[in-house]
Order: sequence, then C-alpha cells, then structure tokens
Amino acid sequence: MIDLRSDTVTLPTPEMRLAIANATLGDAVIDVDPTLEKLEQRTAEILGKEAAVFMPSGSMTNQVAVRVHCDRGNEFICEADCHIYHYEQGAFAGLSGLVAKTIAGDQGVLRVEHLQGAINPTDDHHVRTELLCLENTHNRWGGRIAPQDDVVEACWWASGQGLKTHLDGARLWNAAIATGKSEAELCEPFDSVSVCFSKGLGAPVGSALAGEEKFVQAARRARKLFGGAMRQAGIVAAGSLHALESHRDRLSLDHDHAKMLGDAAESCSVFSIRGGDVHTNIVAIDIDPSWGDGNKLQKHLADQGIDCFAIGPQTIRLVTHLNVSAEQIETACRVLRDAGR
Amino acid sequence: MIDLRSDTVTLPTPEMRLAIANATLGDAVIDVDPTLEKLEQRTAEILGKEAAVFMPSGSMTNQVAVRVHCDRGNEFICEADCHIYHYEQGAFAGLSGLVAKTIAGDQGVLRVEHLQGAINPTDDHHVRTELLCLENTHNRWGGRIAPQDDVVEACWWASGQGLKTHLDGARLWNAAIATGKSEAELCEPFDSVSVCFSKGLGAPVGSALAGEEKFVQAARRARKLFGGAMRQAGIVAAGSLHALESHRDRLSLDHDHAKMLGDAAESCSVFSIRGGDVHTNIVAIDIDPSWGDGNKLQKHLADQGIDCFAIGPQTIRLVTHLNVSAEQIETACRVLRDAGR
Amino acid sequence: MIDLRSDTVTLPTPEMRLAIANATLGDAVIDVDPTLEKLEQRTAEILGKEAAVFMPSGSMTNQVAVRVHCDRGNEFICEADCHIYHYEQGAFAGLSGLVAKTIAGDQGVLRVEHLQGAINPTDDHHVRTELLCLENTHNRWGGRIAPQDDVVEACWWASGQGLKTHLDGARLWNAAIATGKSEAELCEPFDSVSVCFSKGLGAPVGSALAGEEKFVQAARRARKLFGGAMRQAGIVAAGSLHALESHRDRLSLDHDHAKMLGDAAESCSVFSIRGGDVHTNIVAIDIDPSWGDGNKLQKHLADQGIDCFAIGPQTIRLVTHLNVSAEQIETACRVLRDAGR
Amino acid sequence: MIDLRSDTVTLPTPEMRLAIANATLGDAVIDVDPTLEKLEQRTAEILGKEAAVFMPSGSMTNQVAVRVHCDRGNEFICEADCHIYHYEQGAFAGLSGLVAKTIAGDQGVLRVEHLQGAINPTDDHHVRTELLCLENTHNRWGGRIAPQDDVVEACWWASGQGLKTHLDGARLWNAAIATGKSEAELCEPFDSVSVCFSKGLGAPVGSALAGEEKFVQAARRARKLFGGAMRQAGIVAAGSLHALESHRDRLSLDHDHAKMLGDAAESCSVFSIRGGDVHTNIVAIDIDPSWGDGNKLQKHLADQGIDCFAIGPQTIRLVTHLNVSAEQIETACRVLRDAGR
Repeated sequence: MIDLRSDTVTLPTPEMRLAIANATLGDAVIDVDPTLEKLEQRTAEILGKEAAVFMPSGSMTNQVAVRVHCDRGNEFICEADCHIYHYEQGAFAGLSGLVAKTIAGDQGVLRVEHLQGAINPTDDHHVRTELLCLENTHNRWGGRIAPQDDVVEACWWASGQGLKTHLDGARLWNAAIATGKSEAELCEPFDSVSVCFSKGLGAPVGSALAGEEKFVQAARRARKLFGGAMRQAGIVAAGSLHALESHRDRLSLDHDHAKMLGDAAESCSVFSIRGGDVHTNIVAIDIDPSWGDGNKLQKHLADQGIDCFAIGPQTIRLVTHLNVSAEQIETACRVLRDAGR
Repeated sequence: MIDLRSDTVTLPTPEMRLAIANATLGDAVIDVDPTLEKLEQRTAEILGKEAAVFMPSGSMTNQVAVRVHCDRGNEFICEADCHIYHYEQGAFAGLSGLVAKTIAGDQGVLRVEHLQGAINPTDDHHVRTELLCLENTHNRWGGRIAPQDDVVEACWWASGQGLKTHLDGARLWNAAIATGKSEAELCEPFDSVSVCFSKGLGAPVGSALAGEEKFVQAARRARKLFGGAMRQAGIVAAGSLHALESHRDRLSLDHDHAKMLGDAAESCSVFSIRGGDVHTNIVAIDIDPSWGDGNKLQKHLADQGIDCFAIGPQTIRLVTHLNVSAEQIETACRVLRDAGR
Repeated sequence: MIDLRSDTVTLPTPEMRLAIANATLGDAVIDVDPTLEKLEQRTAEILGKEAAVFMPSGSMTNQVAVRVHCDRGNEFICEADCHIYHYEQGAFAGLSGLVAKTIAGDQGVLRVEHLQGAINPTDDHHVRTELLCLENTHNRWGGRIAPQDDVVEACWWASGQGLKTHLDGARLWNAAIATGKSEAELCEPFDSVSVCFSKGLGAPVGSALAGEEKFVQAARRARKLFGGAMRQAGIVAAGSLHALESHRDRLSLDHDHAKMLGDAAESCSVFSIRGGDVHTNIVAIDIDPSWGDGNKLQKHLADQGIDCFAIGPQTIRLVTHLNVSAEQIETACRVLRDAGR
Repeated sequence: MIDLRSDTVTLPTPEMRLAIANATLGDAVIDVDPTLEKLEQRTAEILGKEAAVFMPSGSMTNQVAVRVHCDRGNEFICEADCHIYHYEQGAFAGLSGLVAKTIAGDQGVLRVEHLQGAINPTDDHHVRTELLCLENTHNRWGGRIAPQDDVVEACWWASGQGLKTHLDGARLWNAAIATGKSEAELCEPFDSVSVCFSKGLGAPVGSALAGEEKFVQAARRARKLFGGAMRQAGIVAAGSLHALESHRDRLSLDHDHAKMLGDAAESCSVFSIRGGDVHTNIVAIDIDPSWGDGNKLQKHLADQGIDCFAIGPQTIRLVTHLNVSAEQIETACRVLRDAGR
C-alpha cells in the first residue's frame, strides 16, 4: 500500500535510528538529559524564542499552552476548524476548565475582520477572553498557509487588546519551506508556538512548545502535571533532533509530490482542491456528488493500493511524506486520474 | 425614570410581600420546607415534568442542568447567541469542564438543518457530544418564540441520535401566553427545563429546574455542591409561588405594551425591530447608523426619562414588565417616535 | 418535639418577618439592592473588614473563598474535621480543582506545632500550598472555641510563609459572645472570613464572605459563576440584617442552655462531653458503649420528644437556639439524666 | 560519583539500545505499533490482567487510573505518604476534580483497621468515596513491601463496600523478586495496577496501566486527553520490553546491595533504618539529631563521592540499581560507616 493517510506514519530512517541508539542520556526529571537539552535549545533557536520544552505529543503542547496562557475558567479564541478545538478531546475544558470561542475564518485563516467584537465585555456575566490561537499550516483546510500579513495583523490586534497569542505550528516546517520565510519570522508575532517532530520531519515521537523563559518554565510544570515528564527523554529527543537538523529541507519534495497529486485531481472535473490550490504536503480533495462520496473514493483508492482518509462527507485527504517515493506518487496520480474519469 | 432595562427589575407587589411574610417555613436542608415543597411540586405540574428543584438563580439551574446531563469532559450543543454560553461566565467549562459547541441558528432558532453533522465521531480525538440546549423565548434575539414544530423536530432528531435535551425557559411563561400553548406542551419535547420566577413573573428571587425524578435528584445534589441549598428557602419560594399562581396571565399585557413600543419604533425609518416583529415582552431595536449608534440612543432615551440597555453596537433593548404602566408605555412610545424622526 | 438537631432549624421571628415584608428592594445584579448593600456594609463593619458579599449559603462562601484565594490546581491546609472538607461535597476539588491537605488538630484546634512541615517544597512534583483555613467555633468538635492566641500565632506563621488565611466563622457570633471579644478582634488575623446568618442568628437564609475590597470583588465574580447572584436579594438580606442587629446578644442564653444540657449529661457516668466542656451552643455527648451507641440514644431521646442527631458511632449532638425555651431545656435535661441512669 | 539518588537514573544497556534501534514500528495513534502492542500484551500477561496500556510516565498511569475509576467530583482513599498524593502535583484535583482522603497507615501499609469509617455517608453533604489506592513497594517508606495478607484483606473489604481498588506498583517488580510471589499474585486483589519500566528495570522511558479490557479502553481515551498518545511509540516501548524480559531477575542483586548499605548504617548508633529493616532496593536512613540533620549527611556523603537525597529533615534515602556495581556499594558502605562513627 502507498500510505497517504498522514505524515504521522513516517518511520525513522537508518540514520535517525543510529542517532537514537547512540544518544547521550540523563535523568531529565531530577537532573539533565543532555540530548533533550540540546533539542530544546536548538528548537528555541530555530523558532526565535527564548526557550522551548519537549513533550510526548502535539496535543500536550497545545493544551499546556492554553492552560498556561489562560487563568482558570477563562476563554480563548480559535478558528472554528482548528485542531485544538476539534481533535484534542476538548482537553481545554475537560482538564483545564477553559472555554473555546470558535470563529469561522476564511479557508481556515482568521483575520482581524473576523475577530472584531470577539472579546467579551469585562462584566461578571462574561467569561474573560485571554488568548488568540491560530494554526499554520491549517490541517482541516488542507495544509493551507496563512498569509503572514494577516497573521501579523491579527496578532497585533490581539496584543493591542491585551490578549496573548499562540500558534499551533505542528506543520510550521512546511510553511517555512513553502514560503521561504524562516520559522523564526513566521513565529515572531506569537507569544508561544507549538511544533511537531513526528509529522513531516519523520521523528517517531515528539513535539515542543516555545516562548519566553517564564512561560516555558510554567509549561514545564504543567507538563509534569499532565504526566509528560520523561526520565531519559533523550532517547526520543535524539530522533527529533536528527529530524530537525536533517529533514526540514527535504519537505519541498513532499510539496512537489502534493502538487502533482493536486494536478492529477484537478484534471478530473469531478474533483476539486479544497481551497483552490495545494500549499504544502496536504491535498484535500472535494468530490462532486455525481461521482459518489468520500467513503466511496477512499475505498476505491484503497482497492488500487492507495491508503488515505475521508475527512468529510465529500472530502478525502492525501498527505505526502518521506516514506513515499516519486514513483509511488506517480502511481497515485495515475490511479486518481483514472478514478476521476 | 421609566425602567425598561429588564423584567428582572420588577419589585414584589404588596400581595406578594404578604405571601412572603406569612410563609410556612422549615429547614429545607435537613428536613422539609413546606412552601418550597409546594412550589417545586406546582412547578413540576405546570411544566408537565415529574419533579422540579428550586434554585437561587437561572444561571444555577442552567449550569446544573448541563453538568448533570453531561458526563465529565463531554460536550453540549447550543445556539451561538444563547444565555448559557454568553451570560453565565462560562461556568459549564470553569466549574464542570464541559465544551460548548455553538451553532448559529436562524434568529436564534436551531433547526435540524443547522444540527446536521454536529455530533462528533466516537473516536478518541473527539469530545463526546451528549446534550442539545435550546432557549425559548430567546433573550438576545429580542424575546422571539421558537416555532414549536421546529423545537419538536430538533428534539426528536437529538433524541434519535442519543442526545439529551434541555430547554432554557427563563421566559417560557411569555412563550406560553403568547402562543396559547400550555407550558407543559412547550416543555414536552425536552428532558429538562429551567424557568425563572424573578423575570416577568415578578418574584424577587428564584428559578427552578424540572425533569424526571432521577434527574432532579441528581440536580439537587449538584445544587448543594454549587452552594445553592438554602435553609428556610420558603421565604423566597413564597414569592415565586405567588408569582406563579397570580402573574402568568398578566404577561399578555406586557406583550401588548411591547408591541406598542415596537410599532412606535417601526414608525421611524431609522429604527427596525430585530427579527422583524415583537413576539413577547422584549423589543430589540436595530438603529440605522445614519442616526447614530446604540449608546447614543440609550443616552438620548435616558435624558428623556427612559432607561434601557444597548445590547449591541447598533441595538438597544426595551423590556416591558409589571412595574411599567400603560401610561408610561405611551410616554415611552412618544419619546421613541420623537427620537426617530 | 423539642428540636435540638441544629440551630439551622430556627424560624424567623414576627419582627424579622416584618422586616422582610417591608424591605426596600432593587435589582442587585444590574443595579443595587439597598437592603443587600446595607447588610454587606454592616457585616464588613462588624467583622472589621473592608468589604463583604452576601451569598445564599455558608458552603458557597467557603468554597468561593478557597477558589479565590488559591490559584488553579493549588492546595489549602485545613483541620481534618472541618466543615469545608467534610460537609461541602468536596466542591473545592469538584468545582475548583483544589487539593485539601487535612491535618488533625487538638480538639479541632490547629496550632503552629501541627503546621510545621505542612507547606510543600516548590518543585514540580508538589502541588503549591497557598492557604490556611481554620474554623471557629468548630462544628464537629462540639462548638469549641479556638484559643485566640493559638489562632493569632497560626495565622502569623502562615502569613510569614506566604500563605493566605481564611476563617470559616459560620458560628463566629457564638465565639464572640462567649469570649467577650468582638467579632472584629476574632477576625483580625485572617485575610477572609465567612459567617452565617441562618444558624444561631435565626435568619431564614444567608451567609457572607468578608475581606479586602479586591478579594471581595473577585468573590462577587465567583458568586455569579456559582449561580449565587440573586436579583432582589434584599428580601432575604432583610432577615439577615435584622438577625445581625437583634439576635447576637441573645446567643448567651443559648450558651446557658447548652451548659445546662452539658451538666445533665455529665451527671451521668455513661455520658461525657466531647472535648471536656461546653463552649457555646453545641453539646457533643460521647456515650459509653456499655449504654449502647449513638443511634440508640438518638432514638431513645426521640421517643421522649427530643430531636437530635447522632454525629458519630458513639456520639450525639444537641444544639440550642432561639426556638427552644428554658422550659424545653429543663425537660430535655430531665430526659437526658433519666436516659443516662 | 556513585549515584544512589534514585533507580530512575539508570541508563539503557547496550543490549537495550540495540533493541530500541531495531524496533519494528508503526503509527500507534491511527494504526498499530507492533512493538508497543507486544509490550502491552506481555505486561498484561505478567500482571495477570486482561489488558494494559503504555504511557510516558508513572504519574500519568496513576492519574489516569484515579480519573477513570472515579466519577466526576468523587473521592479516593490513599495512604497519607503515598506517591499519588505527594509527588504528582495534585493532578487528581487539578485535572480531574477529585478529592484524596489521606489516611496514615502503619509504615505505609493501610490495613482494614485503618479504613474503618473511611467511606462517606451517601448524603448530599459528602463527596462519594469510590476507590482505594495502595502502593507496593512504598516509596516514602523506604521500599517496604506490604504484607500480602493485609493487601488482600484491605482490597476484599474495599470491594465489599463497593469501592474499586488500584495499586501503584511502580516498583512492583522489586516486591515480586523479594517475596518470591509472582507479579500476578501480588496484583490479583486489585482492579487496576500501574507499573514503571524506567525505575529498577532500567528502561529510559515508560509505564503501563493494567486492568480489565473495558477499563483499559477508557484509560486509552484518557491517555489521549492527557496528551500521552505517541505515534511510533515502539521506539520507547522497545526499551521497556527489553527491560521487562531481561532485568527483572537481576533486581535481587540490587536488594542485596541495599541490605549491605542497610547493615552499614545499622552498625552506626546514630543511624537507623526507617521501618526497621531493608525490604528491597531503597534504604531510608533516619539520623539521630546528635549527628546533625539530613541535609548535613547528604552533603557529607556527596563530598565523599556518594550522591543521595535527603527526603525528610532527619532522613536520607539511598537507592540501588543496575548502574551501581558491587565495588561501588562497598565504597558506599565504608563511607557510610565512617560518617556514622
């Protein structure tokens, strides 16, 4: 099977396995794990933040971020289709007692125009609005990149209103490669940023949360609370560190592959790209009902050896990554074109 | 001042004060308070439910309802403009760890068409959807009554999907008088209903939550948790009981007054009624920007002796109630017409 | 029946009913209720604090106090037998996510010697200790008064360690009368104090939480969150205000009655007073197993027309209050002596 | 330095690193990770439970266990010195809103006699008691093993009262080796058990929670909520699996080493073993104040090249593990004896 379900399925390369096997380790809870420390410092550096803290999952980095930014029982604003609200089991409420105010953006992008009036009055009837969360690239909107001008403006507006700002940058690496902007530039408007090493970068496990030193210290404490403090964490950090240093540049190949898949889909009148074009390594394909629905296409592709997810009644998603070769992409394009005839 | 800010400003009548002063009392926490018991039974009877429990506020009845209906960390669906989400300080999250999924309805009315796809898949990424909350009459939508057919259909759909259903009926009494349907009929589709005695009915304090016996028992326990169990609660229940028996019919007068105010507003080209017409005792007036904004109109009316709230940038709200006489309404209409010229 | 179960069973006097019936009222949520305001100011004055806020129950005042004093997920220290831990359904955890560290005192009194070592280290393994809660008089320890020197020293120690201090003074009025110290003097060491008007003072409903203006403002916000904000709250506040002004002095009579009951119990070799002597209006009687257990004595007294609670396997509790006459106390003493023969 | 601070400092052996480097992997969130699956199955088998779920830390396994066992806002009973209460940042309250009822046992052992009366009445004043947690071996009581008869009896009593039972078995492996009883036998009385692979067993990262299939399924969902679901989790599971299969038997050597350290301490009149004797791999040494305090001894040993923790004002703790050789133990014994002269 050609596995286009997600870039989370990527397996460590031999070089990464070697890095893991040879990692210098320590007890990160009572002491220091040197590999973990190096990863955290390097991540902070790349993201242009004072500090970073490693965690076992992207959900934990996001949920710790909203918990640390928001005082008890307060509210954050997020895009209606974002990962924090949809795919993290409502932990912001279930663990941290926070309210998510969801606002539908434009193809996943929240601009100042969408945010006007979104901050609650400060009386006792209303929960206090304390944080703005954005997502870049946007998962449910097919890996789309938010225009940096819109991001800067939204964050500037938010800060002006006294809100803090957090970026769910699980696939920030893809946005950086695709735009040619550095990760630090993309992160600059935000108080905090979460990133994943286990998606396109191909590490087996790991995410990080970056921001000011004081914020990261509070996040470390929350990580312990959530049960995310690991002893010789360097064993996983080593994979993430290798991924960070060696696998960012190659993401452009995944993007080329995704565009090929997008072109193949576009060539069929019954398929269209969600959002109009492919930005990074995700291809969300809307299916004309005349052809059938998402489940049908998913099954049809599976029969032809292509694994993917239906992410809506009329939508499937293809994700390219380092375990998919150019040859496999060509096969997938052909299958897709055949399907859409 | 003619006080049209809210029907919560109503003061007890002499008869109600007499009923309060003479109430038969007991310790409701370790024993029974006979007046409280009578109010709870009578409320259950009128709402057509097995049982009811008295609480000090409508916020407590609503927040207890969502807590009891939803298991820890789950989700309820509600209309984007509803009171439970907007005006109760996010207690559903801050006290009970629940997620509110807000869906914009049509003038505050959620129909099955709006609800399609709103129930989360049952995987571990998603919070579980467990409850549907509706509001009738709808506060932020100017006291509008939800068409009972839509209500029945939405509840029927929700129950079919395994959701429980709760009605925020703070002003249910107004809907009953205005439609000629009994409260029991309006409540019939719902597993639970909250009602207020301290709004149009004119009691100083008090709300109730009704439903099946077992649900109400759990709600009683939650009321204790929230600190809402009062000792000789009959002293306030007496006012609510008097209001329930004596002040429901007279709400039609408030509705007539509201329609008069609505007609006065409609006669001015710069004013329009939010939602198109006045349903009950609330008149939400949208102001053409050419005239000015909500704050300006609120201030202008205040200068003429009319107290009201601006509830949006271009919207004010007038509420009629038992402490506003026909004469005062005529004055208010005149002032409004003059303002809108 | 002579009702010695609790001083919460007290019914309003005719004068109190009159005060309630004639109370000047307003909408306390959007405006001011003058009677409520007067009660809050008068309570603050008597307790020697900047401000006070009225709530429907003592549980709410205590639970709001711990929530406002402690940041999310932190810890407070309390006596192992205290009301906040035992009788308020664990709301500190269930609503506010706080840890209670219980320490057994000496007959309900926590002294500095008990508190040594109770503050957690500031590492990420430990929850942060933020508050010390005391109770005076102590309910489960038979209305005992904490020696003020011990209270002062414990609070002084706590403040020195950076802890805030809260007094559960539900029956503070009794401690004041019995010691001859003013309420303000008893409250002086504490950052906040909660008091009840519906116990010995005889009001039907109501409690208050007092402290610095800023703290009380936060408590007001939390009261709204808990659903404790009532509209024309003056209707209940009027009873509390009357109780506060007219019923404090008469508590000495309840204490005399309690001592009579204590003497009657002491005269029986099978009975002994929990803690050695009667301090205020509560008489906790430990029963020698040779006589039988608490349930047996409770039933036996009930058969003779005396209502009380068994509060432990070998303990019953008698509480005197304004609805028990001297004659009834004499009867109760006789029945008790006869039972203990 | 000879590192006797904790068995968590253990580093992976070359064989373990090899097992990690060569692990067969998959995406455990959307698919199956074969190494993870094998570890979970093997753990369940050894513990004699239906199923097990892997997590990144022992804190997460314990906190997920109490969350899944207890309904919202309920209470569990635990020993006053246990890890769940002391060292996990109060997550049971801060994340899950639960109350911990702490009861002091006998050298860390809770027997039925300590538990009598610990279950709350079922009225609305009291939080509901739902779970009993024990710890074996007991960390703060110097690695002591609870007599299995006491464990069986306590669990039998708890089950009879309708409570569920959970064992914090972070160092269960040590208890099994030391008693000659199988892990399954030690776990048999419990509904759920948590174990750690990263302590004496020497894996870099990892813990597991075992119980009935249905319980483990709920725990998996809670693991996702807490952010503990890792993608190619086999990379860490491989280390745990190797530790589980290869490092359990060798724990007896750690126990021999600990006894040697204990004997050395006992030979000094100013030192005594907490609890009287050494049970497993932890040696808690109480220091006579005539010698000085725990911090002094800790510093003194550090100057001689021995690293340990002071765990109380007059107590230090030495922990033996696979990275400490027999020679180093001899050195440590000598230093200890010299110190205590």
